Amino acid sequence: MMGRENIHPTALVDPCAKIADKVKIGPFSIVHANVVLEEGCDIGAYCELGVKTALGDGSPLLVGKNALIRSHSVFYESSCFAEGLTTGHRVTVREKTIAGKNLQIGTLSDIQGDCVIGDYVRFHSNVHIGKGACIGNFVWIFPYVVLTNDPHPPSSVLKGVTVEDFAVIATMTVVLPGVNIGKGALIAAHALLKTDAEPGMLYMGVPAKKICNASQIKLQDGTERPAYPWISHFSRGYPDTVVKDWKKNE
Amino acid sequence: MMGRENIHPTALVDPCAKIADKVKIGPFSIVHANVVLEEGCDIGAYCELGVKTALGDGSPLLVGKNALIRSHSVFYESSCFAEGLTTGHRVTVREKTIAGKNLQIGTLSDIQGDCVIGDYVRFHSNVHIGKGACIGNFVWIFPYVVLTNDPHPPSSVLKGVTVEDFAVIATMTVVLPGVNIGKGALIAAHALLKTDAEPGMLYMGVPAKKICNASQIKLQDGTERPAYPWISHFSRGYPDTVVKDWKKNE
Amino acid sequence: MMGRENIHPTALVDPCAKIADKVKIGPFSIVHANVVLEEGCDIGAYCELGVKTALGDGSPLLVGKNALIRSHSVFYESSCFAEGLTTGHRVTVREKTIAGKNLQIGTLSDIQGDCVIGDYVRFHSNVHIGKGACIGNFVWIFPYVVLTNDPHPPSSVLKGVTVEDFAVIATMTVVLPGVNIGKGALIAAHALLKTDAEPGMLYMGVPAKKICNASQIKLQDGTERPAYPWISHFSRGYPDTVVKDWKKNE
Repeated sequence: MMGRENIHPTALVDPCAKIADKVKIGPFSIVHANVVLEEGCDIGAYCELGVKTALGDGSPLLVGKNALIRSHSVFYESSCFAEGLTTGHRVTVREKTIAGKNLQIGTLSDIQGDCVIGDYVRFHSNVHIGKGACIGNFVWIFPYVVLTNDPHPPSSVLKGVTVEDFAVIATMTVVLPGVNIGKGALIAAHALLKTDAEPGMLYMGVPAKKICNASQIKLQDGTERPAYPWISHFSRGYPDTVVKDWKKNE
Repeated sequence: MMGRENIHPTALVDPCAKIADKVKIGPFSIVHANVVLEEGCDIGAYCELGVKTALGDGSPLLVGKNALIRSHSVFYESSCFAEGLTTGHRVTVREKTIAGKNLQIGTLSDIQGDCVIGDYVRFHSNVHIGKGACIGNFVWIFPYVVLTNDPHPPSSVLKGVTVEDFAVIATMTVVLPGVNIGKGALIAAHALLKTDAEPGMLYMGVPAKKICNASQIKLQDGTERPAYPWISHFSRGYPDTVVKDWKKNE
Repeated sequence: MMGRENIHPTALVDPCAKIADKVKIGPFSIVHANVVLEEGCDIGAYCELGVKTALGDGSPLLVGKNALIRSHSVFYESSCFAEGLTTGHRVTVREKTIAGKNLQIGTLSDIQGDCVIGDYVRFHSNVHIGKGACIGNFVWIFPYVVLTNDPHPPSSVLKGVTVEDFAVIATMTVVLPGVNIGKGALIAAHALLKTDAEPGMLYMGVPAKKICNASQIKLQDGTERPAYPWISHFSRGYPDTVVKDWKKNE
């Protein structure tokens, strides 16, 4: 029961929940029994953490150090986040979501569970991650993107989408079941991706076709440098050690 | 006032609301006066039921037996659900929604009201049902689908969409006003459906065109059987009596 | 501390917040210190107003007279709304959103901040307004529309979208960064707008192309009058003085 001095008096925290030191829990939030919140976690108002589900494996919801979960979010039990999770408001995360460190999940995003997510991944607002997805490191997924998993819905066949390291999926794009998006590939806005995407290439359209190497897109900052790979010009929010690693491997 | 032993002490339930036996109401939820909750209903946290509206007809929000309404959902008065409603989180349902039994409404879905929905319908996450929609039985609508109703917005002309029994609308598809989707038709992902869809046929594209009979799609389970009609291989979540009826009518 | 008789006893209102007379605050809502609510504002349940952010400029969240903010909504500090704001449920509004009078923001809409919005603008449900947007008066934006701002995401280049007076963007349309939508232009449903749109013209498709003058669309009310400019037949919700002004300028 230690470390509970930053729990708002209106919050309902199960005495069996494991709450580390320096954890803050906002007004009217609910933390169920099967939850582990590591040191420095900051939970907003109206959140419900550790929702019970028959689809879980009995393991707790584990939220690593220094997470920031914004208001009105819902997390089920049997998921696991390494340190530095940050969410927007009204995020839903179902059971068996296994995520690396420094994940960002935007407002209204809906992670359906049974998925694996690497380190330093960014989901913008209102992203829908279907079950079975496998997402690498440093991936970016923009608003209203849907990763599907049923090739002929409704059915019992489940083929998750795979997104490799540094890939980018722009807004309002649908990725069909079983598709593999290669390392550093770029899927343009409002596309329907039915086929695998080769590493580093740009895909566009409905259905999406391979257009060119993404590096042919010019940066609109006056320099005309290539805009991809994006790590050549963008590092906001990544730790220095990570950025150094990128440079070393370039 | 009977049957109120499962109402969380933080919930605000109007004494005039009609709450049957074995109804559970979660923390911080609000139930207004003009609400009927039948036996066995389970209401999550942070829900607001029976919101007053000048657009209603004075009738209550009636939720049939054994409903499960998940957290952060909002239902207006003057709607009616037969038994077995199940919702995800943060569902919005406006007035004059008349729905049959065993409806499922996914997380973030937004039912705008003035619509009729049959039995055993499934709306996945983030579905938007415009006013005037008329939806049959056993219909499936997948994430980010929008059923529109105004042929030249903004205007006062309202032409709802009709979706017949067993039809399927895949993710991120827009259905234009007044369109009729025939029995068992399949509208593919990320389509824009401007014309009526014939029964049992597959439509795809922007704008959507008739491609073939949906039965030509093969099931990706190693059997190569037809994937449609989907009731030939999928029955998860339907009662045995329903499934027997399907078989009888095949 | 005057004018607080309509604050629900479960609401948490900072004593430093400036709450005018006749302001109503619903159950379980939170109002932080840096908030000004003018006379007649009606705040629903589970709202959080005035969320602190390092991205603000220290100015308060100012909500003008007679606003109606529906349940589960979140507003950050450093934004400003003239009188008559109306929102749906679960709206998110970030810092530095400067909006004129009588703005409507539909359920689940997500205003990312750093934007300017004119008078009498209507956002329907689930609209996503990227940072840097500049929106005129009497604009209509329909469900699941995304106004983007990064021409090659992720990057630090931000080119907001401009939407001029009376323009209409139909459902599920993506507008690419830096695009200008001219006065009274109409962007059809499920389009991808990559280029500027000329005033009064209709654009359609992925990518969107100029089709014709929007006035060639006929009103489906039996009269066959032109459906655009929409002010020729539609005035629901606008004050008489505004409608008279429209007529005068026709």
